[in-house]
Amino acid sequence: MNYNTLRYEVADDILTLTLDRPEHLNAFTVEMANELIDAFNRASDDDDIRAIVVTGAGRAFCAGMDLTAKGNVFGLDEALQPTMEDMQQRLDDPDIIAGVRDTGGRVTLAIYDCRKPVIAAINGAAVGIGATMTCAMDIRLASEHARIGFVFNKIGITPEACSTWFLPRIVGMSQALEWCYTGDILDAEEALAGGYVKAVLPADQLLEEAYRIARRIAGHSPVAIALTRQMMYRNAAQPHPVEAHKVDSLAIYYCSQKSGKEGVAAFLEKRAPQFTDKTSCDMPAFYPWW
Amino acid sequence: MNYNTLRYEVADDILTLTLDRPEHLNAFTVEMANELIDAFNRASDDDDIRAIVVTGAGRAFCAGMDLTAKGNVFGLDEALQPTMEDMQQRLDDPDIIAGVRDTGGRVTLAIYDCRKPVIAAINGAAVGIGATMTCAMDIRLASEHARIGFVFNKIGITPEACSTWFLPRIVGMSQALEWCYTGDILDAEEALAGGYVKAVLPADQLLEEAYRIARRIAGHSPVAIALTRQMMYRNAAQPHPVEAHKVDSLAIYYCSQKSGKEGVAAFLEKRAPQFTDKTSCDMPAFYPWW
Amino acid sequence: MNYNTLRYEVADDILTLTLDRPEHLNAFTVEMANELIDAFNRASDDDDIRAIVVTGAGRAFCAGMDLTAKGNVFGLDEALQPTMEDMQQRLDDPDIIAGVRDTGGRVTLAIYDCRKPVIAAINGAAVGIGATMTCAMDIRLASEHARIGFVFNKIGITPEACSTWFLPRIVGMSQALEWCYTGDILDAEEALAGGYVKAVLPADQLLEEAYRIARRIAGHSPVAIALTRQMMYRNAAQPHPVEAHKVDSLAIYYCSQKSGKEGVAAFLEKRAPQFTDKTSCDMPAFYPWW
Repeated sequence: MNYNTLRYEVADDILTLTLDRPEHLNAFTVEMANELIDAFNRASDDDDIRAIVVTGAGRAFCAGMDLTAKGNVFGLDEALQPTMEDMQQRLDDPDIIAGVRDTGGRVTLAIYDCRKPVIAAINGAAVGIGATMTCAMDIRLASEHARIGFVFNKIGITPEACSTWFLPRIVGMSQALEWCYTGDILDAEEALAGGYVKAVLPADQLLEEAYRIARRIAGHSPVAIALTRQMMYRNAAQPHPVEAHKVDSLAIYYCSQKSGKEGVAAFLEKRAPQFTDKTSCDMPAFYPWW
Repeated sequence: MNYNTLRYEVADDILTLTLDRPEHLNAFTVEMANELIDAFNRASDDDDIRAIVVTGAGRAFCAGMDLTAKGNVFGLDEALQPTMEDMQQRLDDPDIIAGVRDTGGRVTLAIYDCRKPVIAAINGAAVGIGATMTCAMDIRLASEHARIGFVFNKIGITPEACSTWFLPRIVGMSQALEWCYTGDILDAEEALAGGYVKAVLPADQLLEEAYRIARRIAGHSPVAIALTRQMMYRNAAQPHPVEAHKVDSLAIYYCSQKSGKEGVAAFLEKRAPQFTDKTSCDMPAFYPWW
Repeated sequence: MNYNTLRYEVADDILTLTLDRPEHLNAFTVEMANELIDAFNRASDDDDIRAIVVTGAGRAFCAGMDLTAKGNVFGLDEALQPTMEDMQQRLDDPDIIAGVRDTGGRVTLAIYDCRKPVIAAINGAAVGIGATMTCAMDIRLASEHARIGFVFNKIGITPEACSTWFLPRIVGMSQALEWCYTGDILDAEEALAGGYVKAVLPADQLLEEAYRIARRIAGHSPVAIALTRQMMYRNAAQPHPVEAHKVDSLAIYYCSQKSGKEGVAAFLEKRAPQFTDKTSCDMPAFYPWW
């Protein structure tokens, strides 16, 4: 893939997606947003990819919205500001997308819909959208140099990228509120203590640890993994567990007759399974169920 | 009670439910599922039971689905695989129950509806359904010998038993995803570090600690306890706290005129309360409110 | 403000709300409930207030419902006990408010709707409604003398004040259930270990630490803070992140053209921002969006 703001590199079943504007601390632009959306959609259907690692080139992960970039993120005339009803109905209207729809949220919704597990390897500063985009990733690791800041209120704006949906699911309601209210820049140990990252690593071991986790996943059935990812985020948000039960019933019934046959056989024969199912063509008929 | 796969023993107001196929590491069968459902339903209405402790006979808690057992869990012809719409409408159709409805989920939904607090005493291996059934229990304790594995993706299938609904509520979204993606077998200390179990105990102190907690609950008003259990799981999943407020208002109004009279009198008289209310016949008219 | 049961003191942009019936360990009465609701509503619109600290006079925070107070909290004739349908439709009926609607929940719903961050400084015993009212506060600090008890089941009643909605969001489902089932009185360290309070402090440093956190918030845009508070509680409870995305899009679009202009300018000019927006008159047209 040829992107201007990203590197998209696949090796050993793992896609490494590198935010690649190091001279601007990988600051986020509309172009980067569109390229990220394209990359996550592409990876979702690419059978050569079993897991995704996201990191930043150079010393930052992503220093936030590029405030100096050309192209106005908020280009719509203020007089045309939509109402909530408008937003409900015209969310995919090109004018709304270009002028009002939060660019960061377009990225995190693409991550949310992705069929592959996503691991953030936060190598340095992750501020603003640089922090909130990682909320939608499944597992976060921090280098000892990581600095994470939900700085929105401090500069007079509000958290975005659906972070008010994702962040409390990761760190609980009180920690999420405090981090957003204060806008404090957290060092890696604070992010670990708050439960935001799984581990803090020496800078030169960060990617290797991300790959180690990715490799533990990469050998499993890609269809089972893709279903699990959507079941976890979507079922957990339902008001009653019976909604999970309906999806569970279909998913395990389906998998048991496909990849589960190989999985159980391999288990009984004490050998590693060889899964051949593909997210590009083997997702069950009930998917998407939402 | 006479079950083939369980021991159902009541003493000192506490039911001990023991998965009892030690020669098969208490592996889960359709018969065990049906007996567990029967046992939780029975305990729900049994006024001699104030709390339930679940454990396993021998060295395992439950080693997962019995892959060698007769009786096909997934017996429905593949051509008859229902759609999501079918599942919505025909969930209680005998064909769906027998052929497609997840057996583990039928058990965890029975636990969800139970009027008594449920404590898991995980004495050894708890793998697959052996792990996910404990997600629906209120409090989990682990013996130092416990091993817990959400191994589904590893064998080509998906987590079940409504675990994608329960597990993130206990350990947060990221931990839940990682454990299910990797299928790693967690030892007791890892389960403790992840917040899945309340404590790790020497093997010979596990049940005593479970009973110690159960006894702290067993003296309280059974109707108040039963209402609290349903309020916690159901109110927390509502989109707005006013839904909790409506139930709270009725529940505290009701209890204040029943068991609360004794509770307050005992408190003012500095004596232990003697609650006489029963879940079999004293649940308020607004229950079930869902 | 002149309240009988509270002190309402504003200094340095921070409201200190002190439960002030020290001779009764600040026990909760219907009068205190009504005064708390009035105070939170008033503070919500008071542009001189950027954050709220709640504490107790004397050695207790709030020892629970005043069981000896005049005025019957549960005054409605039992024969008139409403059904769930009644409660849905007549929630704001004066008879229901006076006779059945949970007084504690009326307070926590006022806190929920408040436009200012709320910090609990738990200086001593916080029992019953004294504990549950703090569940609706954003951040909790405990003095080393704090004692917290969700004692409802122990006295034959059920948790109230929407605590079954708030508490699992703070400490997870299992901890919430255990604390409510047992009714144990937690000391400050147990509350910290369970994730209920952010920190435990020597008694004479409790308020100073609360003010230190409040001051980190007080300089930020009050409209951005007010929106963030509602977005966090409300968006997180939605079934799909796209609901957050709709609000995010409008909120960041609005703020970027108001307080965000000053915030970004100050950031680029490396100076402290001077926000002039007010929650009394500058909330956007889409607020409230629910």
